[in-house]
Amino acid sequence: MEMSHRSKVYLGIFESTKEKIKAALSVPDTHEVLFLQGGASLQFSMIPMNLIPELGKGKADYAVTGNFSTIAMKEAKKYCDVHIAATSEDKNHSYIPKQSDLQLSPDASYFYYCANNTVYGTEWQYVPETGTVPICCDMSSDILSKPVDVSKYGIIFAGAQKNMAPAGLTVVIIRKDLAGHEMPCTPLMMNYQTMIEKDSMYNTPPCWNIYMLGLVLDWLEKQGGVKGMEQIKSKKAAILYDYLDESKLFKACAEKGSRSDMNVTFCTGDEEKDAAFCKGATEHGFLNVKGHRKVGGMRASIYNAMPAEGVEKLVAYMKEFEVNNRV
Amino acid sequence: MEMSHRSKVYLGIFESTKEKIKAALSVPDTHEVLFLQGGASLQFSMIPMNLIPELGKGKADYAVTGNFSTIAMKEAKKYCDVHIAATSEDKNHSYIPKQSDLQLSPDASYFYYCANNTVYGTEWQYVPETGTVPICCDMSSDILSKPVDVSKYGIIFAGAQKNMAPAGLTVVIIRKDLAGHEMPCTPLMMNYQTMIEKDSMYNTPPCWNIYMLGLVLDWLEKQGGVKGMEQIKSKKAAILYDYLDESKLFKACAEKGSRSDMNVTFCTGDEEKDAAFCKGATEHGFLNVKGHRKVGGMRASIYNAMPAEGVEKLVAYMKEFEVNNRV
Repeated sequence: MEMSHRSKVYLGIFESTKEKIKAALSVPDTHEVLFLQGGASLQFSMIPMNLIPELGKGKADYAVTGNFSTIAMKEAKKYCDVHIAATSEDKNHSYIPKQSDLQLSPDASYFYYCANNTVYGTEWQYVPETGTVPICCDMSSDILSKPVDVSKYGIIFAGAQKNMAPAGLTVVIIRKDLAGHEMPCTPLMMNYQTMIEKDSMYNTPPCWNIYMLGLVLDWLEKQGGVKGMEQIKSKKAAILYDYLDESKLFKACAEKGSRSDMNVTFCTGDEEKDAAFCKGATEHGFLNVKGHRKVGGMRASIYNAMPAEGVEKLVAYMKEFEVNNRV
Repeated sequence: MEMSHRSKVYLGIFESTKEKIKAALSVPDTHEVLFLQGGASLQFSMIPMNLIPELGKGKADYAVTGNFSTIAMKEAKKYCDVHIAATSEDKNHSYIPKQSDLQLSPDASYFYYCANNTVYGTEWQYVPETGTVPICCDMSSDILSKPVDVSKYGIIFAGAQKNMAPAGLTVVIIRKDLAGHEMPCTPLMMNYQTMIEKDSMYNTPPCWNIYMLGLVLDWLEKQGGVKGMEQIKSKKAAILYDYLDESKLFKACAEKGSRSDMNVTFCTGDEEKDAAFCKGATEHGFLNVKGHRKVGGMRASIYNAMPAEGVEKLVAYMKEFEVNNRV
């Protein structure tokens, strides 16, 4: 922890972690992996500042499917003309728009979406087809849970704190030719080109978080990599969704075909019962099961680190609760 | 490390760490403590973006006394008219300008300086008098090494990795009335006002680094706080400087009255001897003693965590080297 980030020992840790990310996600040579700070929220500004050619001039397409894509879209308005390519706001973000629903601008500098919506429990099941318009995707909450065809993306970014490492690290995978066109007012720390040239070491990076990411990637490899993790997470989510679909008390909030395998949102339809369930959940050792206030009900976040047994135990408690609260 | 940053347990850690910083540096109620990311380098942009009223319009005074103040000054040029209030470039930054040498602009939005220059081994021994112009100070490399009169500053900031905590955390102490006047193009994560309103939790903060800072502040308190640390660091630095001033082989690079107690730069005046010294130093267990290429020679970084014994052992090796390399 006190090691210089320029020391040989640490540079070994840094480079091997980068290689592990590249291997885990099969990152092609056209793309660069960056280790940055500031979370996904800093990327909300960094993307338009680097991809829109001039402050206030240029256009970007946004798909608004939840809380974080809404924030990202609003932030982009500071820098360019924002076009809403699709929104699921009409049904409280309980679904992901279909490809045929996307109203794409051929002259957009990029198309933006958030792969997994933690608050609403929805997840994109497909990669949008946008022609030559580069895709920027916030994968903070489902990265490393399944294979990704990186070549289809202009920029993939993720705050580390869900599936990668303790909070304080942001992983960015950027198609190299997209960098180097930033607005003059772009802060030096938010210049992708500078970060590519300096191998993410323009200044001291969050060394320990990167080290931790390396350990998590070693663990991921033992689970069979992202392919193995895809099977594990699908199985885990199915335990919950299968029960929710047969339950007479609980129902899933997200529509079939749009459901997240990372955040399962559900409710009883009765606020008092929801509250009783959450109270009991805490007593059973299930923490933070209460849903976000924008959705209500409950939410089970079952990121990579959650074992299948945790999900099985939750379902066992749900069944017990259902028996005791017959409709 | 997997704790939600909104959980009660973590909020307790967060708030107590903030209280400890306030207590350690006697932060007055006029000022707010922020826990941010991006290092000092992000502050280089954040300060002008928040303190200069309009992009390209407004003026700031910079004292250029080393590597990082030069970078900060160049970065500010993106946002405003920069006036060099003082520079020590004429003597390769081996000294700190005097108060009487500062050419201050009464209409500047702020005055900027870097308290300790790691590369050159110089340290400001006084707080500049700037009238009503707020002072912004980079204290990355000497914060918590001595008492500071926070009330004299508009913004104090410090990357944590020298005297506070592992890399990945930036501590900012800001006079609250300076926030809320940012340029429209300021990224949301770089808006001081937002961070004040959200108590540094606009998004997930670097939780573990903040926890570590709390532990370091507990340790600091056991050393007698910043007053105790001031005695310890002065004594440590004196061991080195006293020897340098009497040595016939080595000499200190920085002028008396400008010398840093955190980074002691010195040389023999002979590149071959310097190289031989550095090689031997590594063999004796003193790592990274080679000076920065801009100064040459050697540099002993003796931050808070370095015990006096470490400095004594270094001086013992220097004496041994001097005996074996008589001039």
